[in-house]
Amino acid sequence: MVQWRRYLHQHPEVSFHEKETSRWITGRLKEMGIDVKEGVGGGYGLIATIKGVKPGPVVALRCDIDALPIQDEKKTDYISTVPGVMHACGHDAHTSTMLAIASYYNANKEAIAGERRLIFQPAEEVSPGGAKSMIEAGALIGVDAIYGVHLWTPMPYGTAATRPGPFMAAPDEIYIDITGKGGHGGLPHETIDAILVGSAMVQAIQSVVSRNVNPLDPAVVSIGSFHAGSTANVIAERCRMTGTVRTFSEEIRTFIKDRISAIVSQTAAMYGAAATFEYRDGYPPVVNDAMEAARFFRVAPSEFGEEGVSESPLIMAGEDFTYYLREIPGCFMFVGAGGEACGATYPHHHPRFDIDERSMLRAAKLMIAMAEDYATEAASGA
Amino acid sequence: MVQWRRYLHQHPEVSFHEKETSRWITGRLKEMGIDVKEGVGGGYGLIATIKGVKPGPVVALRCDIDALPIQDEKKTDYISTVPGVMHACGHDAHTSTMLAIASYYNANKEAIAGERRLIFQPAEEVSPGGAKSMIEAGALIGVDAIYGVHLWTPMPYGTAATRPGPFMAAPDEIYIDITGKGGHGGLPHETIDAILVGSAMVQAIQSVVSRNVNPLDPAVVSIGSFHAGSTANVIAERCRMTGTVRTFSEEIRTFIKDRISAIVSQTAAMYGAAATFEYRDGYPPVVNDAMEAARFFRVAPSEFGEEGVSESPLIMAGEDFTYYLREIPGCFMFVGAGGEACGATYPHHHPRFDIDERSMLRAAKLMIAMAEDYATEAASGA
Amino acid sequence: MVQWRRYLHQHPEVSFHEKETSRWITGRLKEMGIDVKEGVGGGYGLIATIKGVKPGPVVALRCDIDALPIQDEKKTDYISTVPGVMHACGHDAHTSTMLAIASYYNANKEAIAGERRLIFQPAEEVSPGGAKSMIEAGALIGVDAIYGVHLWTPMPYGTAATRPGPFMAAPDEIYIDITGKGGHGGLPHETIDAILVGSAMVQAIQSVVSRNVNPLDPAVVSIGSFHAGSTANVIAERCRMTGTVRTFSEEIRTFIKDRISAIVSQTAAMYGAAATFEYRDGYPPVVNDAMEAARFFRVAPSEFGEEGVSESPLIMAGEDFTYYLREIPGCFMFVGAGGEACGATYPHHHPRFDIDERSMLRAAKLMIAMAEDYATEAASGA
Amino acid sequence: MVQWRRYLHQHPEVSFHEKETSRWITGRLKEMGIDVKEGVGGGYGLIATIKGVKPGPVVALRCDIDALPIQDEKKTDYISTVPGVMHACGHDAHTSTMLAIASYYNANKEAIAGERRLIFQPAEEVSPGGAKSMIEAGALIGVDAIYGVHLWTPMPYGTAATRPGPFMAAPDEIYIDITGKGGHGGLPHETIDAILVGSAMVQAIQSVVSRNVNPLDPAVVSIGSFHAGSTANVIAERCRMTGTVRTFSEEIRTFIKDRISAIVSQTAAMYGAAATFEYRDGYPPVVNDAMEAARFFRVAPSEFGEEGVSESPLIMAGEDFTYYLREIPGCFMFVGAGGEACGATYPHHHPRFDIDERSMLRAAKLMIAMAEDYATEAASGA
Repeated sequence: MVQWRRYLHQHPEVSFHEKETSRWITGRLKEMGIDVKEGVGGGYGLIATIKGVKPGPVVALRCDIDALPIQDEKKTDYISTVPGVMHACGHDAHTSTMLAIASYYNANKEAIAGERRLIFQPAEEVSPGGAKSMIEAGALIGVDAIYGVHLWTPMPYGTAATRPGPFMAAPDEIYIDITGKGGHGGLPHETIDAILVGSAMVQAIQSVVSRNVNPLDPAVVSIGSFHAGSTANVIAERCRMTGTVRTFSEEIRTFIKDRISAIVSQTAAMYGAAATFEYRDGYPPVVNDAMEAARFFRVAPSEFGEEGVSESPLIMAGEDFTYYLREIPGCFMFVGAGGEACGATYPHHHPRFDIDERSMLRAAKLMIAMAEDYATEAASGA
Repeated sequence: MVQWRRYLHQHPEVSFHEKETSRWITGRLKEMGIDVKEGVGGGYGLIATIKGVKPGPVVALRCDIDALPIQDEKKTDYISTVPGVMHACGHDAHTSTMLAIASYYNANKEAIAGERRLIFQPAEEVSPGGAKSMIEAGALIGVDAIYGVHLWTPMPYGTAATRPGPFMAAPDEIYIDITGKGGHGGLPHETIDAILVGSAMVQAIQSVVSRNVNPLDPAVVSIGSFHAGSTANVIAERCRMTGTVRTFSEEIRTFIKDRISAIVSQTAAMYGAAATFEYRDGYPPVVNDAMEAARFFRVAPSEFGEEGVSESPLIMAGEDFTYYLREIPGCFMFVGAGGEACGATYPHHHPRFDIDERSMLRAAKLMIAMAEDYATEAASGA
Repeated sequence: MVQWRRYLHQHPEVSFHEKETSRWITGRLKEMGIDVKEGVGGGYGLIATIKGVKPGPVVALRCDIDALPIQDEKKTDYISTVPGVMHACGHDAHTSTMLAIASYYNANKEAIAGERRLIFQPAEEVSPGGAKSMIEAGALIGVDAIYGVHLWTPMPYGTAATRPGPFMAAPDEIYIDITGKGGHGGLPHETIDAILVGSAMVQAIQSVVSRNVNPLDPAVVSIGSFHAGSTANVIAERCRMTGTVRTFSEEIRTFIKDRISAIVSQTAAMYGAAATFEYRDGYPPVVNDAMEAARFFRVAPSEFGEEGVSESPLIMAGEDFTYYLREIPGCFMFVGAGGEACGATYPHHHPRFDIDERSMLRAAKLMIAMAEDYATEAASGA
Repeated sequence: MVQWRRYLHQHPEVSFHEKETSRWITGRLKEMGIDVKEGVGGGYGLIATIKGVKPGPVVALRCDIDALPIQDEKKTDYISTVPGVMHACGHDAHTSTMLAIASYYNANKEAIAGERRLIFQPAEEVSPGGAKSMIEAGALIGVDAIYGVHLWTPMPYGTAATRPGPFMAAPDEIYIDITGKGGHGGLPHETIDAILVGSAMVQAIQSVVSRNVNPLDPAVVSIGSFHAGSTANVIAERCRMTGTVRTFSEEIRTFIKDRISAIVSQTAAMYGAAATFEYRDGYPPVVNDAMEAARFFRVAPSEFGEEGVSESPLIMAGEDFTYYLREIPGCFMFVGAGGEACGATYPHHHPRFDIDERSMLRAAKLMIAMAEDYATEAASGA
């Protein structure tokens, strides 16, 4: 498991380009004698299917396989061999975990009631993500429930958490372009000052969170970049701003989009400028099924102990696992992978990101436990 | 005169690099048999001296000789031969005008009471300007009065204007650097948002002109550039703004500097950010001597007619002629050089800037008339 | 119970002036033969004590007895007989509920293990509240646990809710006074415009919630009033603003106080004005003991059914029950009292506020159930 | 002259209520035997006509006669006898000056070429002013030129000033009413915060002067009052702001009106609020005829000496003399009336305002000199 992960770690491929990664996984699965479907969703997605001998439900488990365009700066002997590309979010370990699950199920077919479908999904890191096309290609056809895990270094090794209902944010992006009228810095009356318009928008946008959104509904609007003008003594004609919006429900997401749109258009109009506003949807919020989250709180303590299981706070990052959860019941979970001893102290997407590799086994066991609990319940319900 | 100007126009040199221009002018002056002092002020400044046979005052006339780093886009047969360099402010014509004045005085020495000193000044376009070093090198020693002309395309050919007291602005520059604390776009509470701080400064800076400066005292504060952040979903750590301040008196200049400084430091402190504020003095305001401006209004109508002479409004551009006026009495004047017929319809510093070349003769006559009126008055006063 | 409540409803007394109310309650308790201590805490607080025959814990139940300075506008035959004073928050019903509890316990002394202490607290509506002085007078000496209920019209009759940990907000108040320099509306440069300073503060204050507080921690800062200037053509010398801050933890409360303080002082300094900032602490946040809240979720369904019990969202209003919870374990709970049939459709503090009177019996049963569950658990633990 | 002034000073009447003042002036004029027309313009306006024996032009001289609703706080023996009413702008002295002129002309009819029309105008202090109705009633019919003087304490006794072209501002007023949606201070998302909207308008309005108006054109926009909300913990539903706009040309006046209107409507729309904007025109700018101002600079030195005559800066206050100047040529002038010796050190409209009474004679002589110079010029032109 560790060897697999380290091999993948040394050979990362960015989102939508996981060609060799996909081929390598296929190789491993075939070595095990597992049936694998390649090129699912038009890209490098894979689906491995393991059928049990007993009747029962189809339960899917999902991992993601893509890396990030980040230069590896770790001091280990398994650092990335690809300049500027790195598994800085642990998807290598997710893949390795799933291979271990495949191996386990393959060796225990007689114990499986129904079918276990293992989804190796590409392109989690880049919108529109790989989940959508996997689903469109039929990955969920016939599936009764789905589970997924993210190894999570902010939580220490030996812990697990999730949250019923809204769990992870919709990480959308906004793009604002203002066109005023440039001119001589000493003759402002002949211009429309795009910097003034932009800064007024930044001020007004603060009120979306401070006044318009229910204080009990967490939401963030951040302007991340603001660029206008080139020299001290010329008034800027154009101003470009970009930013991010984080929300946990479609209703608030749409509401904030409308509020910013109104602020942009009315502020521009107020100063006689023109402005365009583009809102790029990221993944929708990850919303866990309440019953499946309850399953986690029932099942996980046997793996992590009562003290190792907790309800996660809302998480401001996004995940395209959300698309699976919009189709069928399921639960997305965090398994703690942080720890000082093994250097797993950096945040996700950091050039020195690493994990406590023991967490992979924990994640594999958790996913199997969830799947088998579901199957058992389904059998007893029949 | 037109040939001289066109030659210079085809061979422009930027500020502080007027080597060949200076050599060429020296050549013309020596051909006339005029005494010329080279390398005045440590650079390419020239002083031509023509002494009359009668006793009388020393009157200086000044022109500037430098070009701009602008690509000539005119459609004439005398466009610049130097890529990216252009006489886009008419200093070629100023130089040519001064050569004509030199020729005239040289041919009429017997009519001169005292001395006429012709100053060919480099580097008017770039702070700290050439005037200061010319003065430090003694250009004004013994001089009683000084006059200068700027050919001005916003005014039509056949007109002239100036203004007693404050005439042209001090064009200073400001540089603001804010350091907040960058971070994840979804976790604003872990950051100090430099864009918010910057935009709050832009808003507050408006009040300097709207509230703090006497509405009867023209002043401008413009933020010309605002750059912060690089991506939509990361909160910016740094923000850099540049701008310009235009004022017509030292008192208001200092006052505005202090006001912006307070806004920058207090706004940064309010948000927990750090900020540096740099105020770069441009030329001080051009302030004409009241008596010498009155001389213009007395003398100019004989050249331009009553209807061709007017009081100029305050001008938001700057000029380093101001340094001469701080030492001795004098007057800086505009001579109209615009006109549709000859394509002189573009503003100064425009890639298609050109002048009505007839204005050079007008400018020469005006400067001579000013000088001789001064000399006559001095004689009658003696 | 209904008669008691309607009598009290017709004879309301405002906070710290509950003299006749207190006397009337004492009368009812003495009729029942219950031991009652009057004048607790230096005001009109009462403590009724009912001792059981068996040993066991001391459990306190608390109600509040004060009314509000609001004119009753209901159309019922039991409207307030006191002009401008009204039981518009249901404290009459709380009192009546507690009398019913007293009656119940008094008739069932043999079933009581230990002691039940019934606290009739004055002045819940007005800071500093009556709870503090009751506690200082010893109301909690020897008490093991305390419970309280608020009848709540936003929830329908037949429901109950609470929340472990933070439940109700700290409702603090802020007072900002700005002193600029008044003057002629046409001569802004001779003034310091207090309205400009105030409006800049309002803008900057938005950033406290939008940028500084963790988006997962609900918080509100609202400026409720802004008064400056008297006439159109005179620049205002003074500006007074008041507002409210709502938080759910001491840490965030202190943080926000410091942020606003910085904004006020730095903004004033930036414009050359002076400002004072006063932060008036309201009640601290109501934070329920986790174990006692768990008791509610265990006990309440037997009274309200599973579907009638829920976890409450955070509530932006405050309560001085918080002071009891800072001393000993306990739980504050809501019992639904709204309903269209009986006209209980108005929010608390509304001139037409009314309750579904059946909710009183539910509240009484809930408090008794909580107390007896505690006692039973204590016995089993012994 | 001093007695007249002191009598009037002790018996002030506010604008549009100058009944006794008018009657008293009529008395004085009739004592002199001068023809006076009462009730001109439907109010308390008077016109005294003195015809010369020679033919010539009709020249009008104007004074104003109303007082202000201010409590006199001077320590002199001629303070106002009317509580809360005071001649705090010198109109008593203007009236007295005009009576002296009447007396002079009446005694020198043989020297008058044409006619001198003396206008005693009511209600200069309160829009729409008395000038309009005087003109509508025919006060200017047949008049060739008009002159007026304001005694001015910011200038010392012995001086006089005016300005060609724009001289005194249009003092307009603005009224902004915002309607948001009030509500609980802890529930901002259910409200539209009128204070936030108002403060955003105040910020944006700064840009009208800082960015939109030519920096060479003096203009002021001041918000003088801002009132919203009543308590700390309730979000304000309404906000009312009033302010003043000062401009010197109709073009800029209209431009600023449009800019503020856009800011008000777009800001309200941006926040989902409603707003009304009312712009109340004060008097138009006082614009002196260039030729008549030149006459002042020619004539005044004989009264005040060269050193006592100067060009006035623009004045931010308004005057309804403007209406006369819109009909016929004329000039409005200031005569210095300040001085420490006589306590004339307070600004106009101050409760301790007083004048150097010697200035009245100077003002009378100046107006006569202007009128006679006009008449002489007219005669020579004939």
